[in-house]
Amino acid sequence: MTASSMTEQGRATRGRIVAAAAALIGEHGVSGTSLDDIRAATNSSKSQLYHYFGDKHGLVQAVIDHQSAVVLGAQAEALDAVRDWRDLERWVDSMVAVVEQQGARGGCPIGTLAAALADTDESFRTALNDAFESWRAAIGGALARMRQNDLLAADADLETLTTTTLAAIQGGLLLAKTSRDSAQLRAALEGAIAQLRAHGVRDKPRPRRR
Amino acid sequence: MTASSMTEQGRATRGRIVAAAAALIGEHGVSGTSLDDIRAATNSSKSQLYHYFGDKHGLVQAVIDHQSAVVLGAQAEALDAVRDWRDLERWVDSMVAVVEQQGARGGCPIGTLAAALADTDESFRTALNDAFESWRAAIGGALARMRQNDLLAADADLETLTTTTLAAIQGGLLLAKTSRDSAQLRAALEGAIAQLRAHGVRDKPRPRRR
Repeated sequence: MTASSMTEQGRATRGRIVAAAAALIGEHGVSGTSLDDIRAATNSSKSQLYHYFGDKHGLVQAVIDHQSAVVLGAQAEALDAVRDWRDLERWVDSMVAVVEQQGARGGCPIGTLAAALADTDESFRTALNDAFESWRAAIGGALARMRQNDLLAADADLETLTTTTLAAIQGGLLLAKTSRDSAQLRAALEGAIAQLRAHGVRDKPRPRRR
Repeated sequence: MTASSMTEQGRATRGRIVAAAAALIGEHGVSGTSLDDIRAATNSSKSQLYHYFGDKHGLVQAVIDHQSAVVLGAQAEALDAVRDWRDLERWVDSMVAVVEQQGARGGCPIGTLAAALADTDESFRTALNDAFESWRAAIGGALARMRQNDLLAADADLETLTTTTLAAIQGGLLLAKTSRDSAQLRAALEGAIAQLRAHGVRDKPRPRRR
């Protein structure tokens, strides 16, 4: 059953189950989390899980959608505010701060799911790739605005720079959680920004924004 | 039982079980692979698995050691040969070629294990972090030789550049397997090299090596 065809109470119940399943899967992985685990954690019945998700595949798909909405919601909001280099540095600082608050645990929910599922299920892979594509669109939008503001060179290859930036995010988050050291994420992200600055326009006056 | 205290036949049997377990875990994840699955795939007995590994934790630890040896063996060999920019480009080409041969499936065995295990088991996290540290040492060694050869600036921060390079590898491999497109790995790796070149020495003559 899709969320849009439900009553308000049904949507709330479904959302509560998905959030709890996302947390369990984040901790134990998809294969390490059974429907019984999710039933026990959410105090729900077999027939409820069947009603809302059909089977485990449907529930995992709902978890992917949930994590994509959470992560991409936050990333799109932060990246949509980027107009200049200082905004980009602020975006880096906020990502590093979140990882520090978590004790450098957890990594990227989308990246962790992609590492586990991209090779095991084609529909999960497609959904996770869509999430990365949305992330790329948000990064690409930020870079396009910086180019409009004469901060990035007109001939900068924004698509390639977007890929290197997203790779730095994903690699940096994985190294940070494996080393429990947010400095590895910071190094990766600062490196991505240094790469963008290599395509920066230095000669023109920058418009003052703040 | 450690590999060093075994007979040759014992080592061979243990190695065969570990390689098969590594393949199964690569396909289905750690939680999605049971000891029974591994027994069935390797035609081994419960008492054999107990003899060689104790329990599933011991077997997963052996798989981490195995994948670290395979990946780091190949990476150390390739990186130890790096003396100049052309060698680095060759290293990029060979990694992209391997991923293309695999149809952009599989990603990095160490990265996939780290994504799944770094937050669930502290001893696995430590072992996987050791693997990344060995990888960093190999990258750092290549960069140090390039600095010795006057190709990288004396004040280049090799530790930070090593982190950005490993993050690009890990992020690029994850994006490539999720998109089934090796071009995303190539973009990430070429970006890492562009970042190294930004610290390159341009004025001095380069020693000819080949």
